[in-house]
Parts: sequence; structure tokens; C-alpha cells
Amino acid sequence: MNENQLTELLEQMTLTEKVGQLIQLATPFFKGASDRGEITGPMENMNISEDDIKQTGSVLGASGAHETINIQKVHMEENRLGIPLLFMSDIIHGFRTIFPVPLAIGCSWDLELAEKSAAIAAKEAAVSGVHVTFAPMVDLSREPRWGRVMEATGEDTFLNSEFARSFVRGFQGDLVNDNHKVASCVKHFAAYGAPEGGRDYNTVDMSEWMLRENYLPAYKAALDEGAEMVMTAFNILNGMPSTGNEPLMRGILREEWGFDGVLISDWGAVKELIPHGVAEDQKQAAEKAMKAGVDIEMMTSCYVNHVKELIAEEKLEETIVDEAVLRILQLKNKLGLFEHPYRGASEEDENIHILSPEHREASRELAAKSMVLLKNEDTLPLNQAGKVALVGPFAESTDILGPWSWGGSAEDTITVAAGFANYLDNDQLLVSQGCDIQNGSNEQFEDAINKAEQAEVIVVAIGEHSDMSGEAGCRADIRVPEVQLELLKKMKALGKPVVAVLFNGRPLDLREVIEHADAVVEAWYPGTEGGTALADLLYGEVNPSAKLTMSMPYSVGQVPIYYNRYNTGRPKDAPDAQERYVSQYLDIPNEPLYPFGYGLSYSRFEYGNMTLSAEQMTKEESLTVTVIVTNTSDVAGEETVQMYVRDLVGDVVRPLKELKGFKKVYLQPGESAEVEFQLGEDQLRYYHADLEHKSDAGEFEVFVGTDSRDVRSKKFCLNS
Amino acid sequence: MNENQLTELLEQMTLTEKVGQLIQLATPFFKGASDRGEITGPMENMNISEDDIKQTGSVLGASGAHETINIQKVHMEENRLGIPLLFMSDIIHGFRTIFPVPLAIGCSWDLELAEKSAAIAAKEAAVSGVHVTFAPMVDLSREPRWGRVMEATGEDTFLNSEFARSFVRGFQGDLVNDNHKVASCVKHFAAYGAPEGGRDYNTVDMSEWMLRENYLPAYKAALDEGAEMVMTAFNILNGMPSTGNEPLMRGILREEWGFDGVLISDWGAVKELIPHGVAEDQKQAAEKAMKAGVDIEMMTSCYVNHVKELIAEEKLEETIVDEAVLRILQLKNKLGLFEHPYRGASEEDENIHILSPEHREASRELAAKSMVLLKNEDTLPLNQAGKVALVGPFAESTDILGPWSWGGSAEDTITVAAGFANYLDNDQLLVSQGCDIQNGSNEQFEDAINKAEQAEVIVVAIGEHSDMSGEAGCRADIRVPEVQLELLKKMKALGKPVVAVLFNGRPLDLREVIEHADAVVEAWYPGTEGGTALADLLYGEVNPSAKLTMSMPYSVGQVPIYYNRYNTGRPKDAPDAQERYVSQYLDIPNEPLYPFGYGLSYSRFEYGNMTLSAEQMTKEESLTVTVIVTNTSDVAGEETVQMYVRDLVGDVVRPLKELKGFKKVYLQPGESAEVEFQLGEDQLRYYHADLEHKSDAGEFEVFVGTDSRDVRSKKFCLNS
Repeated sequence: MNENQLTELLEQMTLTEKVGQLIQLATPFFKGASDRGEITGPMENMNISEDDIKQTGSVLGASGAHETINIQKVHMEENRLGIPLLFMSDIIHGFRTIFPVPLAIGCSWDLELAEKSAAIAAKEAAVSGVHVTFAPMVDLSREPRWGRVMEATGEDTFLNSEFARSFVRGFQGDLVNDNHKVASCVKHFAAYGAPEGGRDYNTVDMSEWMLRENYLPAYKAALDEGAEMVMTAFNILNGMPSTGNEPLMRGILREEWGFDGVLISDWGAVKELIPHGVAEDQKQAAEKAMKAGVDIEMMTSCYVNHVKELIAEEKLEETIVDEAVLRILQLKNKLGLFEHPYRGASEEDENIHILSPEHREASRELAAKSMVLLKNEDTLPLNQAGKVALVGPFAESTDILGPWSWGGSAEDTITVAAGFANYLDNDQLLVSQGCDIQNGSNEQFEDAINKAEQAEVIVVAIGEHSDMSGEAGCRADIRVPEVQLELLKKMKALGKPVVAVLFNGRPLDLREVIEHADAVVEAWYPGTEGGTALADLLYGEVNPSAKLTMSMPYSVGQVPIYYNRYNTGRPKDAPDAQERYVSQYLDIPNEPLYPFGYGLSYSRFEYGNMTLSAEQMTKEESLTVTVIVTNTSDVAGEETVQMYVRDLVGDVVRPLKELKGFKKVYLQPGESAEVEFQLGEDQLRYYHADLEHKSDAGEFEVFVGTDSRDVRSKKFCLNS
Repeated sequence: MNENQLTELLEQMTLTEKVGQLIQLATPFFKGASDRGEITGPMENMNISEDDIKQTGSVLGASGAHETINIQKVHMEENRLGIPLLFMSDIIHGFRTIFPVPLAIGCSWDLELAEKSAAIAAKEAAVSGVHVTFAPMVDLSREPRWGRVMEATGEDTFLNSEFARSFVRGFQGDLVNDNHKVASCVKHFAAYGAPEGGRDYNTVDMSEWMLRENYLPAYKAALDEGAEMVMTAFNILNGMPSTGNEPLMRGILREEWGFDGVLISDWGAVKELIPHGVAEDQKQAAEKAMKAGVDIEMMTSCYVNHVKELIAEEKLEETIVDEAVLRILQLKNKLGLFEHPYRGASEEDENIHILSPEHREASRELAAKSMVLLKNEDTLPLNQAGKVALVGPFAESTDILGPWSWGGSAEDTITVAAGFANYLDNDQLLVSQGCDIQNGSNEQFEDAINKAEQAEVIVVAIGEHSDMSGEAGCRADIRVPEVQLELLKKMKALGKPVVAVLFNGRPLDLREVIEHADAVVEAWYPGTEGGTALADLLYGEVNPSAKLTMSMPYSVGQVPIYYNRYNTGRPKDAPDAQERYVSQYLDIPNEPLYPFGYGLSYSRFEYGNMTLSAEQMTKEESLTVTVIVTNTSDVAGEETVQMYVRDLVGDVVRPLKELKGFKKVYLQPGESAEVEFQLGEDQLRYYHADLEHKSDAGEFEVFVGTDSRDVRSKKFCLNS
């Protein structure tokens, strides 16, 4: 359809039909769904009639070409004007081929692989009938207690923005012409990643300066890349739930940024304006959300039950509904649904693409590239010759897909033990669970000890059950569960080399793990090919190259902890610092256990002198920062060289370091590379006290290094 | 002098003399000081000449009538215009007679005693030659990791405001006519109590809505009560260090609130604009602080070395200096220093008032009223007949004065053991240190066990060394140090009744203490008469009545934790709440171990029905809330009845409960009292999204109870 036809369609629609477009319902509401009828209860509670369902604009969570085609078919017949449904789903880190969780993907620092993972997810989803994915989540977080840190790429504004762009490109690509692409819905607008106390859905409060400087850029980057939709956040932002936050949604998102796509609430978030205490009932909730500019209400029925009444009472203008409906129709049209209501859905294509060897291979590659080697006392890579005891609750677990992997299945998942089988004969591998995630028995311990005593090296696979992170998966104690630490200590006590491998969805307090292991690999939740990838890494087929994108805290008492913090007026490490009256803890260091950007390799990289093309910089001409990196080991490997900047004097305080660029170099043994970064004036801009975004003339320091702590630096001047 | 004379004086002053008024130096800089010469080094570093010292406006930390008179005498002779020095000191919770730390005073909920404590501190300080105290600190804090929580009265805006007023009244009283009074300098403006991660001096960031709603009111209350001075905070607020924060200081403090008193930097905070990264050198630091409206620079010399130059370069107007100087001269004049430069300083009066029996008695009373009985399994009060083992590092410690008690001394301090001697014969009390604060030996443990085995009851006095809280005294682990917990467990294992008494400066994670004791008393740092007061309490001479003014967290992973939080959109306890998708931790409760307002008594108070005078309320007429409280025990005692309000629907989110009033009732056994609260429309106002402070018509809930958790409630409507 062209724009005129869309407008004509809108004109034909009754108000009831229009309001119908504004609601999104889960699959079981629809005729043709495989598990229909189960939610009769909620349907009654929601006061939604069969007629309402016929008018509904979009579907949540439908899955599989068979089901989605069925639902769409019935719907097109029953909907008076034949307006197709939009099918949306949470395709977060893969659909059926599961990739590592986004936090792990972040640690790959590999924007191309990230894009590829999203493209594969899009293809598998698209052939299954999905039109829109609720991804990427780009919420900046400095809160390891928060379970949902696993769903974004880390603590850095710049890196999150780059990954946001990659994911959007991967999902959407040539969305209009390629029906193996899905529209991307960036979430959760805004600042969902900063819940107080790390408790999901909890209070978020920050200055507008902080919001703009650190939290908003990644959403903006996703939109600049063309993300078609935005999802509201559950949290309040400065007193007002995002879903009813007019200054945020109409002000910043629509007016300031010019976003004219579809804004959808998170699940139930319109109705949640009531428990938030800013709406007295569903009618007022509908009014506030509509006024804030929320086009689609997900899974509650405030709009469908009250918008007509609000218009009749002149509390809402009908034009506000028209605008919302038009945006939804435009998206459907962009996806070609009026002409091709099933879009990419095809059982034949499902058979071809889903879990294809190519997809599995991409997952395997990304998984290995996202596992961070934290410690290695001459233990890794493992020798294929000896016997290995593989112990711990993750030894044979298929719970390595991580939260948000409902499309993945246990039977498709390669466990650690199965991965090891690629490198070992049967009699070389001794497997024991050792304990459960939270509990254990002496028998389990004894079995593990028994197996470990027969081996030359012990690999201990421990961590968190995937329910311990993800949405609403918040922990106040961020250590590996006690029983697993006990298992690790028992293994270490045997006097053999111990490799600890961690499966978890958040930065943990790893002090005890580090102390009781000779080598430690942070495997996160690595996805479908997790076991294969881990074995590739441990046996040296892949050389570790991942680097942390969230600081590993020293302890929970240290959070929030992040590398790009401010100096304070009394920094601990100043030359003239007093012993006591500095910003510090008495009982632990200020520094995290492992800093942002940290990760080891089997290679050894040495950094030579860094040089600047000039000591002065102008607004027009960028600076070239060069460093020579040499692989001084006898193993080829990849290094992610990082560039940070500090603005020494600002209008407001400026971070001690800010990531401004990174480059990957793959170096053969003995090989050197000259790594160059361009640094331009636009990269030196920041939000001033008056919220103007600009740079200041003056002195800067630029750092280059292997992580955010181990750097060399030079100063330069930006001239006015 | 009258105002004209002051203006004339100002006109006579050279620019050098004016700038001199703007600096504050520590005592050793001045001739006549008892320990002069020690800071020759710093003096040189500061580039301050003997001539500069002659022009200096104020002195920090001078002590004792003899010294202060000496210094003033020399100064008046050497200063060309005979402008007297202003003597300022940190008199925080008593001068020589030390009262409990402010957090403990908060727990008394006794505004009159708080005022009295400040009046006594003022008198002891005034006769010692002090003119201004850097108190009260009214920084709201929800951060137990922060060492300085001990210096304010807790987590509640309303209660902090009330105490702010009491302290200011107590310090200042009839300041002009009573030379036993000192001027009050409220601090630290603004929001110093919200450092990120609980690390002192660290980043503070919040929305203006949050700032106005929760953090600013206590400063405003102190100013409304007439506090003569304000001190800047060390922290940044939304990117800008407070000390250079023009919108905060000139905007809110001076223009909006009309404050025309003296604004002083915190120690070194002007120069700290450099490490903060908003000034490139001392000159720019001086410029920013002057422009922000900071009149006095404490202990750095940016002003004295650079203001003249800044004026010459027309970066500053001389009028800005004149205004600052005039404010300082006005304060000196208000204190009568031009006519009576020694003001109250008198060695004779020192002998009369300092540590007088009356002062000691007031301290004893307040100490007993500020100790919170957290648990009591039929163990307290103790029986005077039996033998008691008093063990633990605080058994005979004089380190019970707490941080900020430099005027107090060990020899004047009544230890716990000495206090017990008031109730016991010598052979009834067996004392053993048991362990040190952080370390212990088997010999120490054995001695404690040996003594405890001979006793009927064991009192274990444990806690934090006073250096573990206070300024820069931040801890990431907020438990009682491990060795002391071990001591407690060993005592508990003996099978006798165990009373744990805690000496500490912050809310702690007390789970292990509670588990291993039959009764627990939070004694905080109780001051000079701490031992006496504790014995009074444990032996039932005083019936406990204190109530927590900060939540006792369940664990450090739960912070920040405070009672007046928001509901979120997915509250854990809602009737229709899902099991998983609610705002919660998986591993600990959302609730603190002990809530705000909590504290036990030896009496038992029962609350009858509450009644409202009406179900509707207008803007003109207040509501009367009544509850009948009965002492159903056979012990007379005092109960603090608390009234909270919840605004059920707001323009922005509203707290689950907000303290709006409290009343103390002293009830004989079997006695009942009708406790009445008035609730007016002005108490229902709050900051809206547009920062307007007003109430909304609609439904409210009012709660009355013994703490913030154990309440009964009624609803009412505010009519428009």
C-alpha cells in the first residue's frame, strides 16, 4: 500500500477497530493457536470479547510457521477490513539456535559476529512467522545484583551503542525487501538498567545530566540505525513510570529525537500505572499512557476497555488514537503484510534454516569468542593426552542456554561433557555432578573426589541456574552458591591442577573461585554450542580473546562499580592523598577484582610506545593515535586493543576514562602490528551542566591498552 | 555596631584585608596557639604569609578559653582595623561532655533532649571560646556502608527536619544576648548522604525531584529555625561539585530560600575543585567557588592567593567579595565580637560548666533513651542478684564516645564495666575482653569462657572501633567483625542467657548476632555516660524506649533500604502478584531485618482501634487521628506512637508510607491513653513532576502504629 491507501484504510476504520490495533495479546487468545483456551481465566479478567480479538492489532509469542499462518489466516477472514496481525516475540539471543547471552556477546567485542548472530536469529524467527523481535535490550547497567544484566552488553555507553547498532542491523537488514528479516524493538526506554538495590522493576532515579550522558545514547544509537520500535521500561524515572512519562516519550523520544515508529508498553506496564500509584484505575492508566505516546498496550486491556470512553468524555482527542494506529499500519505495511500476510513464515524454510550447520557454527564461534579467561597459572590449554575429571552441576547440564531462550531446547544443546568428547577418548573423561546448584550430598562429593583422584586435571563446571538471573532474577548475594564453592575447594585440596569454568548471567564476587583454581574461565551462558565452544577453548583450538564488559566486583558491598567513574575531590591514589580522608572503603579496595576490558589470552601481547600524530588537535582535524602491539608468545592470537580518553578539566566532572575506540588484531607468534585510532573532536563532546552537548578546548589524556587498567597514555590539547 | 558602622568598616578595608576575611585557618597558624609551628610545612605549601594570617577572618578548631583568648588578643592587636576572629569548631554531639552520636539521638525520637544536648554542647563550647559549631549535619542517608551515617539522625526527611530544628534551637537559642550560645552551621549542602556505593566523598546523582522531595527539606528546616551558616558538601551533585555549584548555592540556597548568612566550604573543598576536574588550577577553583557564592574557604588558600588577580582581570566583580565580607562581618557583629571579642570564653566558666553533674546527667538520660532494644527473649532486665560475665572488646573500653568527639576524653568516660558496678557488688561482675575488635587469641577466648562459666548470665559487648565509622570510615562488609561473632557464638554455646550489646556507628547486618543472643541492645556510641546508661537500661532502672531511625538491613546486598520507598509496578506482596515476576530478591526478603521506627520496651503496649474525626478532609480543616494505646504489662514505660500517611494516587509515585507525626506517651501498668494527631492539608503536599509543591485531592491512607511495619490504618479523602 502507499501512504494514501493507508490513510484511506484508517478513515474506513471504526473507533472500535482503531482501538483494537492498539492492543497486543498473547497467542492463546487467537483461533488457530496450538494451545488455545488455556487462558480463558485471564481473558475473562481482561474483559475482552471474541469481537475484540478480531480487531486486535498484534500477537505476542506465537511460534512456528504452522501456528502463525493458521492464526493469520483465521484473522484475515474475521477482521472486517482484512488488516493483518503483527507477530512479535522475544528473540533475544537466538531463536532455536541459541547464541551466548548478550552480556557474553558484549565480551566478544565482535560487532560483526554480534550482527551475524542477530541475522541468524532473525532468519530463524522470520521463517517461523515472527515479524518483530523485542530486542535489542540496550539498558546500561552497573548493577550485578540485577538479574537482567545478562540481557545487555555491559556497563559502557559507547560499546553498548555500537552493539545496539550491530544487533539492529542484524535483525532488520533490508527489512522491506528481505522477508528473512524482522523489525527490531529497542528496549527498555529508559534507564531500566539502574534499579535501586539491583532489584528488578525497582525505583530508578538520576539527574537528566546522568541520563543523557550515560543511559540514553544506546537507545538513540539503535534508533539511528533504524530500529522500527521502542518498548517502554517498567521502572519509574524520576518519579514517573516510563510508560506514563510524557516528557520522556513525547518530549525526548518523539519530539527531540524525531522517532515516528511504534512505541509499545512492556508486558502489562500500562495497567501497572495503578500499583505505581499514578493512576487510580485502568481508565486513568489508559489516559496517561496514551498521552505519553504509548501506541500498543501489551497484555492488559486498559485501552480496549476505556479509550472510547475517554474520547467521549473529551479527555483524549481521537487524533491521538489515529496517530498511533497509523504508525502501526505503517509498520505492517513496511513489512509488506497487507500483500503478504504470512511474510517469511514457511514450514519448508524452517526445515532448511533452523539449527542449520551454518547457524550452529556461528553460535559455536561466538560462544568461544565470548568466554573470558580470567586466570591461567600455566594450566590452559589442556593437554589432550591425559585423563580429565569433569565435575560440577554444569558438567552435563543443558541449562547453558541462559534466560530468554524459550525457542531453544535441551536436546539440541551440546553439554560440556559432549563438547569434551570431541577432544578425548571415552576412557579419558570422568564425569561427576559433584553437587546440585544449591545443595549437595556427601555421596555426590565422594563421587567427584573419586573421579578426580583418577585424573591428571580437574575441570569444575559451576555457576548459577539460569533462573538465578534474567528477568526478576535478582540476588543480594552474588557469590557462586556455597555448596559449589565447597566442591571447588574439595577439588583443589586434591593437589591437582584445577580449572574452574563458570556459567552465570551476571558479574559475580569470584574471590573464592579465583583462590581455589589454577585457571578460571567465565563461560557465561554460551548457548546451543556451549559445550563444543568451551572444549575448543580449553583444548586450545580457539585462543581466548574475550574481554569483560562489566567490572567483576570485589564483593557485593562494592556495587555499583564501573570503570568510567569520576575522580571525586579526594581520590585515594592522589600523590598528596591523606591516609584516611580519601574516598575509600576501610575493608576492601576501591578497584574491582577484574576491571572492564580485562581478559587473558594464551598468547602474550606486549605494547610498545604509543605515539600521537600531534600534540594539538583542532575541531576540524582528527588525531591519530598509534601503538605497536607484538605477540611475544609462540601462540597465534587475537588482541582487542582499547582506546580511552579523559578530559582533564570540564564544565562538569568527567570520567577517569571513557572508551572511545577499540580494534582487534590477530597476530602470529612474534608478529607486530601498528594499531591506529582516529580521534576527532566529536568524540570529545559531553553534556555540560546546561545539557548542551559539546567539547571544550583544553587538555586531554588518551590511553591505549589491553584493558581499562593496564594502559599507557599521552596528553594532547584540543584548541578552540 | 549598627549596619552603617559595618558598611563604613567595609569601606575602610583594603582588598587584601577583605580577602583575608574569606579564609579560615586552623589554630596552629595563629600566634597564641598552644601548638603553633607544627604546620610550618602546610603553611609554606599554602603560600600564606604572616601578613595574610593577620588579615584572616576565622579560626578552625581552637579550644579552651585560655588559648582562644590568647589568639584573639594577639590578633586584635595585629589586625589594622581590629576585626576580631571568628572561632569555629566541630562540636557535633557534645564538647567535653559527650552525648550519643546523632544517629543514636535520632533513635530517642526526643526533640527536647536533643535540643538540650545541643544547648549543653553550646555552653561548654562557648565558655571555651567557640563561636560557631559545624553542626548539625542533617544529611539524609539510606546508606549504612557510609561511615558518616552516625552523624545525622537517620533516613527520614520529616524526622531529620525536626531534629535539625531542635539542634539549631539548642545551639543558637538567644544567640545575640546569650554568650553561652554558639552559631550553628548546617551541613553539608547538599545531599552528601547519598554517595554512590556508600563510599565517602563519592559521586552523588539524583533527579531534582528526588533532591527536593527527600534531601533538601532538613537543610531548609535548619535555616527556617535560624541557622546562621551553611557548609558546602564535598560531593558532586549532578556533575558539579557542590562547592562550585552555582545553581545550587546562588539559585536554590540564596535566591529561592533567601539565605543571607555565611556559606563556608568544607575542609579544603575549594581546592578540591581541581581533583574533581572542574578547575584547572587554584585560580579557577577560586573563581568557581566565589561565583557559586562560597564566602569562606576552609583550609586552602585559593581565595587569598588568587581573588585579587581575578578581580584585576575582571573575572570577578569586587562587589562579590564585598558581599561575602559583609556577611562575615555581620555574623561577627551579631555575636557581639566587635564589642566583646572573647564573647563567652572564660576559664572560670569552664570550671563551672564543663562536665558538670547536670551535663553528665543529661548525657546519661539521652544515652539510655537512644539505646534500641532489638530482641528480648525474657532475658532483660537483668536480675541484680546473680553473677554476670561481661565479655567483649567493649567491656572496659572507653572507645564508646564515637567519631567526632575530640573534646571528650577517655578518663571522663564511664565504661560498661564501671556502669555495671553501680548495680553489682565486686564479686558479682566477671570481666573479660574476649577478643579485640578485629583479632583475637585462644587465650582471650578461654578467659572469656572461663569467666562466663562462673556466671548466670553473659553480656557480650561487641561492635565497631569508632574509626570504622565517621568521616571516611566506610565499610563494604557491614557485619560485626568475624572474631567478635565467634566470641558471641562461643558464649551462646555455653547454654546460658546471652545479652549482646552493640557499639557501632551504622546500621549493621545483625543476622548472626540476633541468632546467637537471647537479647540484643543497639547501644550505638552512647557517649561519656555510656556505661552508666547501659547499666540503667539492662537493670531496668530505665525502660527502653528508643526506636530505629534507619532500617537495619537484612544484608549489605539489600542496600539502599528504607521504609518510605515506592511500590513499583510489580510489588511482591500484591494479592494478584505472580510468584516470579515481582520486584524481589531470590535469596533474601525485600524487608529489612528491623524496620524504621522499630524498638522494644520492657512494657507491652497494645493499640486499640484508630478513629478519624472525619472521612473527608478539606484544605482548611485538619483531621484528627486518634488511637488508644494501653500498657498491658506490669512495667511503666514510654511508647513513641507513630503516624504515617500514604497518598494512594499521585501525579508522581508516592511513598508506601511517610512519617507525618509522632507522640510519646508514658504509661503506668494498665494505663491507657488516647493519642491524638492532627493531620492538615499542608502535610499532604509533595513535589509534582513539574516541581510544584502541593497536595492533590483524592484518597489517602493514614497509619498509626508502634513502628513503620506494625500499623493499623484508615482511609480518608482530601476534597479539592
